[in-house]
Amino acid sequence: MKINNNYNNLKDNYLFATIAERVSAFRKSYPDKKLIRLGIGDVTLPLPKVAVTAAKKAADEMGDKATFRGYGEYRGYPFLQTAIASYYADKGVKLANDEIFVSDGAKSDAGNFLDIFDTANTVLIPDPVYPVYVDTNIMAGRKIVYIAGNEDNGFLPMPDSKIKADIIYICSPNNPTGAVYTKEGLKAWVDYANNRGAIILFDSAYEAFIRNDKLPQSIFQIEGARTCAVEIGSLSKTAGFTGTRCGYTIVPLELKVGDTSINKLWYRRQATKFNGVSYIVQRAAEAVFTKQGLAEAHANIDYYMENAKIICNALAQKGIWHTGGENSPYVWLKCPDGDSWKFFDRLLTEFNIVGTPGAGFGKNGERYFRLTAFGSREDVTEAVERLKKL
Amino acid sequence: MKINNNYNNLKDNYLFATIAERVSAFRKSYPDKKLIRLGIGDVTLPLPKVAVTAAKKAADEMGDKATFRGYGEYRGYPFLQTAIASYYADKGVKLANDEIFVSDGAKSDAGNFLDIFDTANTVLIPDPVYPVYVDTNIMAGRKIVYIAGNEDNGFLPMPDSKIKADIIYICSPNNPTGAVYTKEGLKAWVDYANNRGAIILFDSAYEAFIRNDKLPQSIFQIEGARTCAVEIGSLSKTAGFTGTRCGYTIVPLELKVGDTSINKLWYRRQATKFNGVSYIVQRAAEAVFTKQGLAEAHANIDYYMENAKIICNALAQKGIWHTGGENSPYVWLKCPDGDSWKFFDRLLTEFNIVGTPGAGFGKNGERYFRLTAFGSREDVTEAVERLKKL
Repeated sequence: MKINNNYNNLKDNYLFATIAERVSAFRKSYPDKKLIRLGIGDVTLPLPKVAVTAAKKAADEMGDKATFRGYGEYRGYPFLQTAIASYYADKGVKLANDEIFVSDGAKSDAGNFLDIFDTANTVLIPDPVYPVYVDTNIMAGRKIVYIAGNEDNGFLPMPDSKIKADIIYICSPNNPTGAVYTKEGLKAWVDYANNRGAIILFDSAYEAFIRNDKLPQSIFQIEGARTCAVEIGSLSKTAGFTGTRCGYTIVPLELKVGDTSINKLWYRRQATKFNGVSYIVQRAAEAVFTKQGLAEAHANIDYYMENAKIICNALAQKGIWHTGGENSPYVWLKCPDGDSWKFFDRLLTEFNIVGTPGAGFGKNGERYFRLTAFGSREDVTEAVERLKKL
Repeated sequence: MKINNNYNNLKDNYLFATIAERVSAFRKSYPDKKLIRLGIGDVTLPLPKVAVTAAKKAADEMGDKATFRGYGEYRGYPFLQTAIASYYADKGVKLANDEIFVSDGAKSDAGNFLDIFDTANTVLIPDPVYPVYVDTNIMAGRKIVYIAGNEDNGFLPMPDSKIKADIIYICSPNNPTGAVYTKEGLKAWVDYANNRGAIILFDSAYEAFIRNDKLPQSIFQIEGARTCAVEIGSLSKTAGFTGTRCGYTIVPLELKVGDTSINKLWYRRQATKFNGVSYIVQRAAEAVFTKQGLAEAHANIDYYMENAKIICNALAQKGIWHTGGENSPYVWLKCPDGDSWKFFDRLLTEFNIVGTPGAGFGKNGERYFRLTAFGSREDVTEAVERLKKL
């Protein structure tokens, strides 16, 4: 009996644990100081009312023999697939219901999707990045090559034909940097993937935060993407579903490796290791994609984006280099003193503000820092006031 | 770019597709005949009322900023862990909250748990069996050895010290046979696993159907299990959650491979590839484990078990060998004419009853047949009346 030894190659990510420890120590020493948390990566505003109403109606149906539902479809209920397809149609992207796989969230799919690929494939991951892409591939023992995001490329690294990769992760708008690829930028990645026969796993979890309508909200707005890309979407940040749990993965029917349909392969995986998302949650998700649901969701996003604007303006006034925040809830700034952990300590002790050191997202984040827009307006306003003394 | 080639070794399981085709062809030829479905593996009675009330209250909380919940704990909310621990305490099994991992269902966990084990391990699987155990291991490229369930051992195969296996699946009460291990039977498996340093994945999805209180409802009722077993439980059949989605996996803190804690390894897997179960669903599940919730769930199970009794009595009157049905919703019978597909056709055409051919569950099922107790009383009574002419 042996464990999967690849797990021994995982680095324990002490990022949030270390943050918690330092914050806790600070609280003990200064119990009267008011801390403001701008490190939070979780939403704080409630679900759209129409989603709540839909969930309650679905719960009632489940309590009545006449309307009770047992096992659902592995790909999700057609009513939700249709709602998602219509959401994409509004972006000019045409999807068949069979291309939409409803899931319990983008994180599950970002990890599980790898099941269907050989462990001998090479994975290309931008650095800095959401740590799940790295860890799930280490768990499978895949070779990972990193591509650097930095100030020169605006934290939007471009493909390099010398790099031989089979699976490519792209997150746009990016977590943690908030940077967003243009259509031309994504087109270069699509061309690179199609030329190599590689597959792009495109994480669109933050697409709803895009304000500039020239920026792509889906990789399927790019010509050629249907033969090289999978898109992983989520209602977590779009509609406050972090605790309600619903996402989806789009796998075009044209996407193949050799003669093998990736859509069929993923269906086989899901049919074997997954039994679908709760009917109650799927009804709540369907309601999000109604006119009223989207209006409510967008009002919440407007609130967060106003926070982001306030943060960005304050950084600009201080002359601090930053990106993100315009089409993303994340603001990524260059630490005035260099090291991101030192800046963390300074923000905590001098200004009583908690953020996230960029070092937690990879080597290229070591001198950067992430602030998020998910707090309350009062907190953001006060934080900005405090930072005037920086 | 290569796909996971192990997927090519999967046999397409045409069982339910073939059943659907034959039923559809019959319907076309005889549109006026009333078909009775005794093949269904899904529950038909609604959720306990208290679970519906709890889900609706939780949905309301999610719609109010003051009570909204974002990301939950990877292991599940403590309120649900505590409820499950209390359910187990009533069976004489003491569990720490950290040993209980709430999931979206037993199927996900039965497949995903393998992530943390080396693919070079050998897996021992009883035949006939729930096909998920086989397919998930084929997907990972593991060597599978089968152990035969048959009339001689009452479809409860016992360990054989000559078989070298690292991972052992046990499902009791069994799907598809409905057979249930005694405490002595399970003790032999626990001893075998402890002697070999193997791990048992114990599927207890049907434990709530056990009527004979001498039969074990949890492997942790067996001495020595905490050093060799993981238990995968589900609310699907216990409380009608097949479409609501909630299960749990119990990983004892003592369970180790070498120096590695399996509990910690599974936590690492879940923290990386899973973001927890919907708060709304977890509140519904918590309500199931209240006194009122269990009373409602047990009333539904009583209804199904009365159906099982009616089926078993009819088979006994006909002198047809069968097992299951006394502590399980499944009745497993020996086909009077041998081949299980032939019997399927005969039941369909002569008696207009749909069941499930045992061949779909493995080689040892080829001459057997599964009937289930999840239908309505009216249907079961009429089916039994028809079968008098068999």
